Amino acid sequence: MTLRIGVIGTGAIGRDHICRITQRLKGAQVVAVNDVNAGQARAVVDDYGLQATVHSKGTDVIDDRNVDAIIVTSWGPTHEEFVLAAIATGKPVFCEKPLAVTAEGCRRIVEAEMATGRKLVQVGFMRRFDQAYRQLKQVLGADTIGAPLILNCAHRNPEAPGFSGDMALTDSCVHEFDVLRWLLDGDDYVSAQVIQPRKTRLCDDNLQDPHVILLRTRQGVHIAIESFVNCQYGYDIQCQVVGETGTASLPEPASVPVRHDAKLSSDILVNWKDRFIDAFDVEFQEWIDATARGEMHGPSAWDGYVVAVTSDACVKAKHSEQIETIDLPERPAFYGT
Amino acid sequence: MTLRIGVIGTGAIGRDHICRITQRLKGAQVVAVNDVNAGQARAVVDDYGLQATVHSKGTDVIDDRNVDAIIVTSWGPTHEEFVLAAIATGKPVFCEKPLAVTAEGCRRIVEAEMATGRKLVQVGFMRRFDQAYRQLKQVLGADTIGAPLILNCAHRNPEAPGFSGDMALTDSCVHEFDVLRWLLDGDDYVSAQVIQPRKTRLCDDNLQDPHVILLRTRQGVHIAIESFVNCQYGYDIQCQVVGETGTASLPEPASVPVRHDAKLSSDILVNWKDRFIDAFDVEFQEWIDATARGEMHGPSAWDGYVVAVTSDACVKAKHSEQIETIDLPERPAFYGT
Amino acid sequence: MTLRIGVIGTGAIGRDHICRITQRLKGAQVVAVNDVNAGQARAVVDDYGLQATVHSKGTDVIDDRNVDAIIVTSWGPTHEEFVLAAIATGKPVFCEKPLAVTAEGCRRIVEAEMATGRKLVQVGFMRRFDQAYRQLKQVLGADTIGAPLILNCAHRNPEAPGFSGDMALTDSCVHEFDVLRWLLDGDDYVSAQVIQPRKTRLCDDNLQDPHVILLRTRQGVHIAIESFVNCQYGYDIQCQVVGETGTASLPEPASVPVRHDAKLSSDILVNWKDRFIDAFDVEFQEWIDATARGEMHGPSAWDGYVVAVTSDACVKAKHSEQIETIDLPERPAFYGT
Amino acid sequence: MTLRIGVIGTGAIGRDHICRITQRLKGAQVVAVNDVNAGQARAVVDDYGLQATVHSKGTDVIDDRNVDAIIVTSWGPTHEEFVLAAIATGKPVFCEKPLAVTAEGCRRIVEAEMATGRKLVQVGFMRRFDQAYRQLKQVLGADTIGAPLILNCAHRNPEAPGFSGDMALTDSCVHEFDVLRWLLDGDDYVSAQVIQPRKTRLCDDNLQDPHVILLRTRQGVHIAIESFVNCQYGYDIQCQVVGETGTASLPEPASVPVRHDAKLSSDILVNWKDRFIDAFDVEFQEWIDATARGEMHGPSAWDGYVVAVTSDACVKAKHSEQIETIDLPERPAFYGT
Repeated sequence: MTLRIGVIGTGAIGRDHICRITQRLKGAQVVAVNDVNAGQARAVVDDYGLQATVHSKGTDVIDDRNVDAIIVTSWGPTHEEFVLAAIATGKPVFCEKPLAVTAEGCRRIVEAEMATGRKLVQVGFMRRFDQAYRQLKQVLGADTIGAPLILNCAHRNPEAPGFSGDMALTDSCVHEFDVLRWLLDGDDYVSAQVIQPRKTRLCDDNLQDPHVILLRTRQGVHIAIESFVNCQYGYDIQCQVVGETGTASLPEPASVPVRHDAKLSSDILVNWKDRFIDAFDVEFQEWIDATARGEMHGPSAWDGYVVAVTSDACVKAKHSEQIETIDLPERPAFYGT
Repeated sequence: MTLRIGVIGTGAIGRDHICRITQRLKGAQVVAVNDVNAGQARAVVDDYGLQATVHSKGTDVIDDRNVDAIIVTSWGPTHEEFVLAAIATGKPVFCEKPLAVTAEGCRRIVEAEMATGRKLVQVGFMRRFDQAYRQLKQVLGADTIGAPLILNCAHRNPEAPGFSGDMALTDSCVHEFDVLRWLLDGDDYVSAQVIQPRKTRLCDDNLQDPHVILLRTRQGVHIAIESFVNCQYGYDIQCQVVGETGTASLPEPASVPVRHDAKLSSDILVNWKDRFIDAFDVEFQEWIDATARGEMHGPSAWDGYVVAVTSDACVKAKHSEQIETIDLPERPAFYGT
Repeated sequence: MTLRIGVIGTGAIGRDHICRITQRLKGAQVVAVNDVNAGQARAVVDDYGLQATVHSKGTDVIDDRNVDAIIVTSWGPTHEEFVLAAIATGKPVFCEKPLAVTAEGCRRIVEAEMATGRKLVQVGFMRRFDQAYRQLKQVLGADTIGAPLILNCAHRNPEAPGFSGDMALTDSCVHEFDVLRWLLDGDDYVSAQVIQPRKTRLCDDNLQDPHVILLRTRQGVHIAIESFVNCQYGYDIQCQVVGETGTASLPEPASVPVRHDAKLSSDILVNWKDRFIDAFDVEFQEWIDATARGEMHGPSAWDGYVVAVTSDACVKAKHSEQIETIDLPERPAFYGT
Repeated sequence: MTLRIGVIGTGAIGRDHICRITQRLKGAQVVAVNDVNAGQARAVVDDYGLQATVHSKGTDVIDDRNVDAIIVTSWGPTHEEFVLAAIATGKPVFCEKPLAVTAEGCRRIVEAEMATGRKLVQVGFMRRFDQAYRQLKQVLGADTIGAPLILNCAHRNPEAPGFSGDMALTDSCVHEFDVLRWLLDGDDYVSAQVIQPRKTRLCDDNLQDPHVILLRTRQGVHIAIESFVNCQYGYDIQCQVVGETGTASLPEPASVPVRHDAKLSSDILVNWKDRFIDAFDVEFQEWIDATARGEMHGPSAWDGYVVAVTSDACVKAKHSEQIETIDLPERPAFYGT
């Protein structure tokens, strides 16, 4: 059985996912697409030799009878509408982050999904599918280092030309918010604080960079996330867990050790796609396989909602320069433990 | 278009390849199988839900009109016969090592293939498809460290219960012989010497372990390969290239750095399958894709022949305790540069 | 010329310094000692074969005409009195931390020293003399990584049986306070915050452990210091500087890389003395040499005062759970730039 | 008691040793010097403010009644004469390598020393005093990795402008010959082979570089030493021991890990003095202390003789391109086990 997929939004990331489904992954086929730029949608169909209908509206993709499952990779503000529509038809939907541009929007999706009685929504937090994070989670699970007490994380981009305002918090740190909570087996955040250190001179004058986000969990775990989107030197994701009896860190991507010119060195990646390309493949293969079996295991609508609430709290904390409480309702039983 | 594959030999490694083609790779389907143990072949068909004919003879697989390409994973001594039969039908054939159990057998395959005027044979040297070796080759190609002068390599297994006689040379080092020549852009070996160091007490009394194999290339590159198949501590493949202006080494497999109990440590693999599982996937995906396009890019019959000659020279050198010349004919133009 | 030294306090650390001056360092001789436990002082004289007067009072050591310079390694609460007495006689004095048990006490020492018009006091912050910290400072000075923006530090002890209350802040973090300000070329702290993460179960119920201390400097540099005095796994001092164009970290102590039992590992120290034994030697040799030349280059009384103010602010911040301002007067010209 | 030392040869290395004895080490004083260049000897006396007699002949230094012990750092061909003269007077003598320029010369020294019935001679193989080698020896002694089977070593210099002929073997590898035998608790060499790999283009046309020296010990341990004296990239000493259950390697010198410009890197030394400066200090302090107690623990005249025989065998093996036997007499009981 081949899962027939409809893709709404065929821009950069949508195109990438169509490419991986078509050329690398098993068990699925893209049979319908839509983009606000119809020509672009058609070009993607041609480029990948898809046998796919090009729809003029996103909702037509969802309603297409040949479509078993939906991927939403359109412009962020449209996500909520399409995800709700997919839920309304009872079709599984994979939505790139953000699930919705507001926490309330995420909440509406959660409620709509719960009303159907079936898990239909997966959110595109791909780090859970990254081999390095999975290895780290395995070490934590093996209890080698005891209960986690502190997490020290860094998210560094060489540069972020399009970034403005609080995008570092709302756009890139959301991956940290999701993956760290997953590493901690769902231990929820209870407060947030945002520190604005000395600004690098190598970014736009109007931009604060770096930020340090401090989170506290229900269990008391202290999390520090450095977000530095103009760090110049590379794309570098770090995560160190300090436990009661030891520490464990995210492995570095494999790289050739070279001795040359009075240095022992190895390359650091510069492009985020190189860092997570394999994770995207795993994410979609697992989604296809689970969806084909009528299951859903990845980051849920609830996870998307939690990340949205956390992100909001961080933006508020940045501007208030205070520790802000994160008030989450109890996780519904529907979303498991 | 789906490449229809026939598999001869459905034991451990054949079964693994059937699994990966069926469950992970794109563009191919196993449509015919054979094994000396017919029940075993039928079990594999059932286990993976294949729509495949179970043939009673290997040559029937080759002759099956539904079969586009052959994979030979039967017992080593049968390889030559099946590869020659595949060549005779003009069908592409992937043969696990050894291509043939003697250099003469390999030579017969080379000649049969050349007689057809088409490259049909690929040999299962999967290290060329390993990400770490590819990264190392890329660094060498970028000329960062100048011309290679010396290679220091190690092939270590935790233990090798079934090994006897010269199997370390003929069975495991063959992968080194192939991949190092590939790293050096085809610079052929001209002599071999085998050193038998102090024996570990942790292996069978009749077995020499470790060995150190020394090879010299036409360009004068000195290669030392340590083969230590009862090293106890892990499955560990190392390769360091010393060039005119620096050194470059095979990256270690990514592993979580842990601080615990007065040690900073990271795991070393213990199972060779974990080390090369991704390489096998890449190897077969590339073979399927190339075969579907009527091309052949992987290790050739000539490469298989060179490895066999090298392996013979090493066995001879071990017993003579002399430096033995490796006499290779010129590479036929058919096999490119 | 040999510098004639009087030592007040011959307990553990005093005894160590007497040992290094007598057996390893050049240019000095211990000629007078005192301890509250007179027998202990006499035993040290015997053990090291010193030709030294055992005085019954600490101030007698200072007044001893044969004594050129004083080392104060007595019980903390007595430091201020002895340092002031040494200043009063115009004799150079090396005082182990704390310079005084209160910031006011430190301030009195600063004023007394300034009144003499000569720098006489050095405080025992030995990390400035550690090879690893010096290498790190050299990299920062070479401007390889641009201006420092963030410092991530950790101070971990395997266990701290005698620790109580806020000793982690007042006793061990003082070394961090001094060395980080020195790394940052004297960029003073302007605020402090102390986070109390989830407590390890592996320490006394009444003790908070770990702490995370956040400091901000005049330049806006954000500093996070993890103090974890019951981390179990080892004595581990870490420091990472994030600059505008890169990061630089404290090197790990050299240790033999071992591959064994499915791990690649190297030893982590467990005893703080092993970590800083060389730094103590360098610290005292440089102090002896400078003192013999009538100079004083190490951590000054002003540095001791700054550390005391910082430490007080941290204790206050811990209990208020607020960000506390650190109000330092301008550094007097007497203490240089 | 202060050991009164006479130094014969005040050129580069002699001057360094005078500096360390005078400025850094304890318990000794240089009281007499000689150099073929008398002006140079006088300049050293002035530069370090020595109270030392400048003798016109080396033997006058030895005969000087104020001299307790001798350091020979003159031109290699004069070593034998001075060491024999020192033995004749019964004075302890530290001789930089070579002990004598021929194995026969070393043998004469051994016999002269044995005839006195007292150990008087120490040879300047400083690696035994290097912290890294001592850490490695400690790991081997702890039996973590079982019995050693293979040693892989490299000795790399960035360049060696003055090198000619076989100096790589006779001048720099001698340190390897001594320290490896010491690491292996005196397991003697029984054969040598020298491989001449592809030559680097970055050295003189008449020079072979690199070499690979293969040694075998009585126990069967296989040793490979790469000597590459024009490796360009740094001064790099490596040593890996492969044992029955694991491997252990020489630690790298501590260096600041830097992330910058898409590389994670740390500095490699370029000057051999930086690598072994601490070892020289330890070597001489231990020699001074032992000599003052009438003892002798460092590399002995016998060790110097063994190295000379090994070096001769390597030169022979290089030119014969054969495996050459190393024929050592039994170690005399005088030189312990």
